[in-house]
Amino acid sequence: MAQNQSAPDATRRSERSRRAIYDAALALVAEVGYPKTTIEGIASRAGVGKQTIYRWWSSKADVLLEAFLDLSGQAAEAAAQDRPSADASPYGIPDTGDLAADLKHVLRATVDELRDPAFEAPSRALAAEGVVNEELGRRFVATLLEPQLQLYVDRLRSAQEAGDVRPDLDPRIALELFVSPLAQRWLQYTGPITYEYTDTLVDYALNGLAPR
Amino acid sequence: MAQNQSAPDATRRSERSRRAIYDAALALVAEVGYPKTTIEGIASRAGVGKQTIYRWWSSKADVLLEAFLDLSGQAAEAAAQDRPSADASPYGIPDTGDLAADLKHVLRATVDELRDPAFEAPSRALAAEGVVNEELGRRFVATLLEPQLQLYVDRLRSAQEAGDVRPDLDPRIALELFVSPLAQRWLQYTGPITYEYTDTLVDYALNGLAPR
Repeated sequence: MAQNQSAPDATRRSERSRRAIYDAALALVAEVGYPKTTIEGIASRAGVGKQTIYRWWSSKADVLLEAFLDLSGQAAEAAAQDRPSADASPYGIPDTGDLAADLKHVLRATVDELRDPAFEAPSRALAAEGVVNEELGRRFVATLLEPQLQLYVDRLRSAQEAGDVRPDLDPRIALELFVSPLAQRWLQYTGPITYEYTDTLVDYALNGLAPR
Repeated sequence: MAQNQSAPDATRRSERSRRAIYDAALALVAEVGYPKTTIEGIASRAGVGKQTIYRWWSSKADVLLEAFLDLSGQAAEAAAQDRPSADASPYGIPDTGDLAADLKHVLRATVDELRDPAFEAPSRALAAEGVVNEELGRRFVATLLEPQLQLYVDRLRSAQEAGDVRPDLDPRIALELFVSPLAQRWLQYTGPITYEYTDTLVDYALNGLAPR
């Protein structure tokens, strides 16, 4: 019996440690930046031994990427709860048949996420490091960004089948017309980030700049 | 007579020091990043006294922004020499009447600049700092990036007058459809940077994703 009880207790303890480590890693990188974040610093802030961290991860990059995955997962779950159940998958982009409306909906949610302080400071620290550290930048993109961009690829492919997007376009490039402007404004402070702005991006991208 | 000769000599010496300081600042920020770049380090690498730097600039941010302005100016001059003399201003975007061709021309030149090692390493260091340092990021954009973006605004306004771009579009947002994707690929390694890619961006942005 004692052993039967200890297994779930250990799991709960592990889960608590894991969450404390995520929180410590995100808070620390936001405060001191990626180069000065260390496994020792994360362990100390999380109130665990260094060995606990090394048991699960082999580097600070691994800890941080997993902490960000967890953070994004939480944001996606929260967004899914706000969304009508008729929508497709909980993590996907809605497919109501109205492409412009669906893209505007998701970009507005991204605006909210970008302005969320829990997300902003650690994300900026990781993104900044990715600009000068190609290996980390590429891991960051492959793990965190590209899976989200693939959701747009799927939505645009479905729109191509429905005849709402030209069949000859490459969806992976096409999505950049409305995703990248928002990303650049966030990364480089090139302009305000609002719902009106992202709505405008979708309209411009779908209809094009040239008169029809 | 002695005094008449010494004035141009002093100017030449100043000009030499100024260039040595620009080179040192750009090399240093590329090697150690913005936070570890110091006025002392720049002075030592340039072979000048700290006082020489403080006579002309009040902070390392000032030195670096001016060094980048000088670097961009050199790149623009080099590009202008490669360009047919029929084009508009030496620093502007050509206006041949073919909007797509003019935008593709300038974006191809930007691809060359982004891949130039003399430009890439220091620019990445400054851009990375701008992501986490809002004050510097905004100065960087206002001083270095926005004047370049305004050239696109001018070219799109001229295209609106010629009837090649919808009159109701905001040119400052419209330009982001082809400028920001290239910027994000450079900042975040989200995809390869080629002439074919920037040509495609221009075609997608002008014609739109929806069938015509």
